[in-house]
Amino acid sequence: MSASRLLDELIEALRCLPGVGAKSAQRMAFALLERNRDGGLKLADALQQAMQRIGRCERCRNFSETPLCSLCAGSGRDRRTLCVVESPADLATIEQATGYRGLYFVLMGHLSPLDGLGPEELGLPQLAARLAEGEIEEMIVATNPTVEGEATAHYLAHLARAGGIRPTRLAHGVPLGGELEYVDRGTLAHAFGGRQLLE
Amino acid sequence: MSASRLLDELIEALRCLPGVGAKSAQRMAFALLERNRDGGLKLADALQQAMQRIGRCERCRNFSETPLCSLCAGSGRDRRTLCVVESPADLATIEQATGYRGLYFVLMGHLSPLDGLGPEELGLPQLAARLAEGEIEEMIVATNPTVEGEATAHYLAHLARAGGIRPTRLAHGVPLGGELEYVDRGTLAHAFGGRQLLE
Repeated sequence: MSASRLLDELIEALRCLPGVGAKSAQRMAFALLERNRDGGLKLADALQQAMQRIGRCERCRNFSETPLCSLCAGSGRDRRTLCVVESPADLATIEQATGYRGLYFVLMGHLSPLDGLGPEELGLPQLAARLAEGEIEEMIVATNPTVEGEATAHYLAHLARAGGIRPTRLAHGVPLGGELEYVDRGTLAHAFGGRQLLE
Repeated sequence: MSASRLLDELIEALRCLPGVGAKSAQRMAFALLERNRDGGLKLADALQQAMQRIGRCERCRNFSETPLCSLCAGSGRDRRTLCVVESPADLATIEQATGYRGLYFVLMGHLSPLDGLGPEELGLPQLAARLAEGEIEEMIVATNPTVEGEATAHYLAHLARAGGIRPTRLAHGVPLGGELEYVDRGTLAHAFGGRQLLE
């Protein structure tokens, strides 16, 4: 299309990024070539390193380039609480937004038998073994509030109770800063049912 | 921030792309790691190749990995018309949108003395030498319709006339598919002044 084969290849390759279409990819390629070749080279290196060297933490299944991730290997976290999330992105969001200081377990998905995602694929035997170690007292289930996420949460709660561990779930309700008028029915009904004493 | 240093570095490096902030960069990094490592590696390679090997065409100053770009080197273009644009992105847009079959000259900017961009920096001596070769009959000035672009267009028109070449400018007016109510005043005034006989 353009006058340079390498440029065409770069534009095509940039489209593997989520949310980047033909026009954005073209804009990115020209911006890097015109103004920031060093940044482009640095990005190439970071991509190569990350794609080749990042694996999974043996203990929590989060992304990590070492056998144990820094959260599991470090000594600064509360080892009595375990937060179970669907993805590393959820873990990162919780780390950034909350003051949670416990450990994590990353399912890498949710129970979805039709897609071939059963307890084995989500590492639940590994989780059960970890619960059996006796160190964990509370398991916070932070799966997404979707049908599959809720089903997974039920399964996890069952697993926790079988191990004598207290399962908890993130609170659902009206989001802060929202307006009641625009909150969806399901959430509002849930918030009504779960109303709490004003003290 | 997260549990992996390489992941943090990748997220930081992705922010060199225009329009990509912290949250988008995180989303891109996780998407590549979870679902498309091959695409990520391909992108790393394409970036490295492009940043290191793409230079400028000796004749039209467009991006090219060879001394002459494929448009200048090829034989399929009309060598009597020359379209002058501000950037390689403008060139790509014209190639994609129009049926133009002539050659190009890329200024890589517009006249802006305060930013140290004079005729030398825009390659205008090179353009003058090319006009003097006598092959070109029409020079289409396709600089942006901004104050600096218009100033550059005037300068280019002067250059063309000095070489006995017919300078033309892209038509300005009401964009197709727009509504008069929402067209800005300057454009509408220009469209009125430049009204044409309906045949």
